[in-house]
Amino acid sequence: MIKTDILIIGAGPTGLFTVFEAGLLKLKCHLIDALPQPGGQLAELYPKKPIYDIPGFPEVLAGDLVDNLMEQIEAFQPGFTLGERAETIEKLDDGSFIVTTNKGTQHHAPIVAIAGGLGSFEPRKPPIPNLVKYEDKGVIYMVKEPEKYRGKKIVIAGGGDSALDWSIFLADIAEEVTLVHRRNEFRGALDSVEKVQTLKNQGKIKLITPAEVVEVYGEEELTSVLIRKKAEVTEDIHLETDYFIPLFGLSPKLGPIADWGLEIEKNAIKVDNTLDYQTNIPGIYAIGDVNTYPGKLKLILCGFHEATLMCQSAYQRIFPDKKYVMKYTTVGGVTGFDGTKKEAPKAVIQAID
Amino acid sequence: MIKTDILIIGAGPTGLFTVFEAGLLKLKCHLIDALPQPGGQLAELYPKKPIYDIPGFPEVLAGDLVDNLMEQIEAFQPGFTLGERAETIEKLDDGSFIVTTNKGTQHHAPIVAIAGGLGSFEPRKPPIPNLVKYEDKGVIYMVKEPEKYRGKKIVIAGGGDSALDWSIFLADIAEEVTLVHRRNEFRGALDSVEKVQTLKNQGKIKLITPAEVVEVYGEEELTSVLIRKKAEVTEDIHLETDYFIPLFGLSPKLGPIADWGLEIEKNAIKVDNTLDYQTNIPGIYAIGDVNTYPGKLKLILCGFHEATLMCQSAYQRIFPDKKYVMKYTTVGGVTGFDGTKKEAPKAVIQAID
Repeated sequence: MIKTDILIIGAGPTGLFTVFEAGLLKLKCHLIDALPQPGGQLAELYPKKPIYDIPGFPEVLAGDLVDNLMEQIEAFQPGFTLGERAETIEKLDDGSFIVTTNKGTQHHAPIVAIAGGLGSFEPRKPPIPNLVKYEDKGVIYMVKEPEKYRGKKIVIAGGGDSALDWSIFLADIAEEVTLVHRRNEFRGALDSVEKVQTLKNQGKIKLITPAEVVEVYGEEELTSVLIRKKAEVTEDIHLETDYFIPLFGLSPKLGPIADWGLEIEKNAIKVDNTLDYQTNIPGIYAIGDVNTYPGKLKLILCGFHEATLMCQSAYQRIFPDKKYVMKYTTVGGVTGFDGTKKEAPKAVIQAID
Repeated sequence: MIKTDILIIGAGPTGLFTVFEAGLLKLKCHLIDALPQPGGQLAELYPKKPIYDIPGFPEVLAGDLVDNLMEQIEAFQPGFTLGERAETIEKLDDGSFIVTTNKGTQHHAPIVAIAGGLGSFEPRKPPIPNLVKYEDKGVIYMVKEPEKYRGKKIVIAGGGDSALDWSIFLADIAEEVTLVHRRNEFRGALDSVEKVQTLKNQGKIKLITPAEVVEVYGEEELTSVLIRKKAEVTEDIHLETDYFIPLFGLSPKLGPIADWGLEIEKNAIKVDNTLDYQTNIPGIYAIGDVNTYPGKLKLILCGFHEATLMCQSAYQRIFPDKKYVMKYTTVGGVTGFDGTKKEAPKAVIQAID
């Protein structure tokens, strides 16, 4: 059982910044995310795209913002349960919560902060018979540990950035990478498209287009796929493979959280006020894109503010008798749980003679 | 008469970021600030101090944050009335406002956003007889146009960063800089103290300590000061000078805004809700450190959020019949009033053969 002060569902920018504000209050955080890495949409969907409306950044790449936030919270040593989806919640008699993931990992905390963005990202699955049977037995929707593909044969399907980027990345690691796309044209960053072209010319990526994977075979584990190429004549290619990775995008779903007894409105969690963003269940907060209130804007900068006020309220809930006096970081510095201290250089007092 | 869409009182970080969010809505902004440069406290009080709680910045110098914000809003071409304090407000029949400064500059706008921080910074004045008589006639509390001191004789009084920094800066410009402080010890950044020591050794700054300016003389304009040096024996030094600049710090005062008919609580402006931060006077908003509501935190990141929601509400007020559909900057880019356009590189669609 993982124990923490604030259990954060969702490791996107709002969830990550919560760790910092909680840390200033000496509260520890643990984050759960269905994605294999922190950063939410920013890391998974558009790490190389610039964002222009983060205050103080005329332009910042989404992936760099995530890196910055990870650096900012490092001293507060957050815990992570990644690649698992928060599935059920149980309220104990003392008002604290146990949250269990789809893989059975249990977390216990007095405060739950749902920073779930648009929901947990679920892969879009192609309509192939028996595909589900081979899930995690050769059929993979999200690449989590690239090393497990070393020396293996891989078929990737898709025509966007994910398919391009993973084909490039795995071309160096796998024995054989075959990229299947239903059109000849790919849609992605210019340099990714060009890189795949080069790797194809070098024989490091096998390209089959326009084509689709239509069947998957194997006993227990996946062993081969049937690829249907639709040129002038239709051609069926039977290909042995260790892994089939269909990359047709992710679609966010509020998912199991919708059944936690929270008030839901327009696929978002209604907060009963905009002073601390608490939900209808005391002790459960909703911050960032996942919440809704009149005039709500789904902006990262709003999530930062919501996380900050939420942490103050969480502190009062955990320590009802303590009065917290806010100190500015510029004046008081930042003391990490790892013993580090960052602070402004002190003014010297020195005679001039 | 200066006309704009949103008149912002206060050019600190919250006021500056308002320009950006307003710009995305195609609303023009003009800012009034009593200080001679944008940035508020950050620029005036602690430009070289690090801030640790701006989301996405593990550490940022206050002055750099101001520079970043100025760069971020540049394309939206804000107007500035600097070195003047917003003094009076008049509501016209059509619901718009005229705001007049202490120097008589008039501004007309349908929306007023008070982002006044802790108030307008007023200099702390030393208790010297007749000092007020020479204000702006040789006695200066804030250095606004350094060039006017070229080739002049200057007496600076004070022992903190401002006194040190302006002595250093003006030593290159003025004919003669005399720094007077009531102690031998100065309190400031190490490099500033060392620099003054060097300039003193080079004869570029005259230092008189421990001493105080006790009298000021002149007909219409200031012509000389009396400096009382308190060593073993007290010594009076009569010094001819063009300017006397006492730098004993600034103290924020809500000032004339307190008389605008706004609800005031604990020296801050009460906002009637936390959905758009409007005050009791429709069309006047209060954002950032200047406002108060239950649980208010005087943090820069909160001001950014408040500015953002406020701009949406202002838009609805100006265009009651239009429905604004928010576009993400990552998707829609940012189009400046100066014709510039920033946008994410588009995905290419390209065949691989």
